[in-house]
Amino acid sequence: MSDTRAPWSVESARRGAGWLLGGAIDGDVVVSCRVRLARNLSGFPFLSRATLDQRLEVMDAVRAQIARASLGPALLWANIHELPSLERTLLVERHLMSKELAKGDLPRGLAVTLPDERVSVMVNEEDHLRVQCLLPGMALPQAWAMASEADDRLEDGLDIAYSSRYGYLTACPTNVGTGVRMSVMLHLPALRLSAEIEKVKRAASDMGLSVRGFYGENSEASGDLFQISNQRTLGRPESMILAELHEQIVPTVIAYERAARRNLLDKQPRLVEDQCGRALGLLLHARLLTPEETMGAISMVRLGRALNIADCAGIAADDATLLQLMLQVQPAHLQRIAERQMDQQQRREYRADLVRQRLTPATGA
Amino acid sequence: MSDTRAPWSVESARRGAGWLLGGAIDGDVVVSCRVRLARNLSGFPFLSRATLDQRLEVMDAVRAQIARASLGPALLWANIHELPSLERTLLVERHLMSKELAKGDLPRGLAVTLPDERVSVMVNEEDHLRVQCLLPGMALPQAWAMASEADDRLEDGLDIAYSSRYGYLTACPTNVGTGVRMSVMLHLPALRLSAEIEKVKRAASDMGLSVRGFYGENSEASGDLFQISNQRTLGRPESMILAELHEQIVPTVIAYERAARRNLLDKQPRLVEDQCGRALGLLLHARLLTPEETMGAISMVRLGRALNIADCAGIAADDATLLQLMLQVQPAHLQRIAERQMDQQQRREYRADLVRQRLTPATGA
Repeated sequence: MSDTRAPWSVESARRGAGWLLGGAIDGDVVVSCRVRLARNLSGFPFLSRATLDQRLEVMDAVRAQIARASLGPALLWANIHELPSLERTLLVERHLMSKELAKGDLPRGLAVTLPDERVSVMVNEEDHLRVQCLLPGMALPQAWAMASEADDRLEDGLDIAYSSRYGYLTACPTNVGTGVRMSVMLHLPALRLSAEIEKVKRAASDMGLSVRGFYGENSEASGDLFQISNQRTLGRPESMILAELHEQIVPTVIAYERAARRNLLDKQPRLVEDQCGRALGLLLHARLLTPEETMGAISMVRLGRALNIADCAGIAADDATLLQLMLQVQPAHLQRIAERQMDQQQRREYRADLVRQRLTPATGA
Repeated sequence: MSDTRAPWSVESARRGAGWLLGGAIDGDVVVSCRVRLARNLSGFPFLSRATLDQRLEVMDAVRAQIARASLGPALLWANIHELPSLERTLLVERHLMSKELAKGDLPRGLAVTLPDERVSVMVNEEDHLRVQCLLPGMALPQAWAMASEADDRLEDGLDIAYSSRYGYLTACPTNVGTGVRMSVMLHLPALRLSAEIEKVKRAASDMGLSVRGFYGENSEASGDLFQISNQRTLGRPESMILAELHEQIVPTVIAYERAARRNLLDKQPRLVEDQCGRALGLLLHARLLTPEETMGAISMVRLGRALNIADCAGIAADDATLLQLMLQVQPAHLQRIAERQMDQQQRREYRADLVRQRLTPATGA
């Protein structure tokens, strides 16, 4: 617990993120769970109409309360608007804050618990504050409990905008009510390969859930990572959202994915061996790699390991390393690990070298 | 010289073809040279207008003369129209006869010298007889000499249609005159990668030459193998065609290709390492391979070896093995090597297994 280096430190970039650990509950399919709470201070306008002074007042008040709230053993605070672009991108890549918070030069801040990076608070994003908790594996109730506790500690010293009729008041009507968004990030390569992912998406959409990619609202699913989240917040208590996701939807998707994997291996073993093998061949032998193709190939190699397909089962990297690699091959992480700025071509070179090195067993005595 | 097995024997398929040997003159670029002579018997109509009896008479006469002509230490004769389809395809894949000869059920035959398979005579293809000689590497004069000698021996006992005004008379006007087609098969991966191959094609076309793929007139270049041949035969002595190809065109193309290879390595080392590496990764890790992608990847690995690029330089297969593989991954060869009939899916599986096995160093003491 003594490692309090910032999430943008070289060491942190090399270590990866805590929420990408392997060996978690249902970790073969579930990558991580996230609970985010949107809150606003009463007595201040929403940010779209706030003056610079009001913004600063909000930030000061929230920051002071964060300092009092003892959210974790150690805490990092960053004035995001003063951070260089690379640092901001690192935090976005690590899922500690949103792209929205990274943008713009108006006062905004981020608090992150260290060293686990499990709880973070965005200040002056869309809402005055957004508390989030991110945990590896199928741990939505735990993430909810942690986020909720952090929220309690923060609300304790803040006057939060709350309507007895509507619940929490938020800048965007979609968040009014509980202000909660619960998300589960799933690795669904077999559902994608068997084209069943579209069915899952439609079913989720019919149930008022959204399915998005690794990097949020408008991103395509990259590396077969899909994020399932609740959409509606008004008139639905947190316990209902939690139960729906944790007890119904996610277990169902996990079961579908596992069935699809078994099915691929039973019905088309050569095809899946081929796809996983090609992916491994790419990662081991390419000398230039784009982020997209790297994510896709790592996903297939991870599937290959899950199915115990010869080539993939024999690589040096375990499941956790593969997940961390998905993060580490992102542009900002790559540059931090390399400890130098790199243009796109240089990143493609370094990415290929890094991936090859991570997947190749160390030789020598 | 005691191996007189037919070119469609399992052993021959496994051994590959003599004209694909590595270590030949200019073998880094030139795969093989071929000289083909079109001849017809006087006193018989061209085949398009010949009766069945006339066809049989032609075949008998030519076959008898072939038997007398001692074209090689041993000789195979095959009634192509009586051969099963797989056998015919094997002979086409080995470049011992044309697709045209393989087609149809009218009487037609093929003579091949054994064990070298260097000289072959197609009977009742487009012309009554077509003599061809195929040699590895830059050996056009030698191929011309061998074809010419074989032709002399055949003409010795046959009445060949010849006009003092036009020269040899042939079924298609493009062959009238010398009836000779000289071809050089070149491996031009760097010219293709640098997109200079189009310039070469245009230049060749302007000089009255044709540039075709590995499998003849209408085939796309596969595995970056390009065949440059003379088009015109009328009014141009063989010596002129030979000199033009052997002394001017082919040396120029060889020099271009070598310059393009050096240039790739100097200017874009990463890119070429990447392309060669990806190709090797595919061959080593895919579990299903189509002929086209296999040819393309083998071509790149061969380039990688020529440029001494780490991964490719370390494989178990040498240049000769790589060229033979290009032949052996063809559908009929693959089935002969496997000693069983296979559908497309089975061939893709077997092809991937065969390639992987050939490129992987043998392990164990």
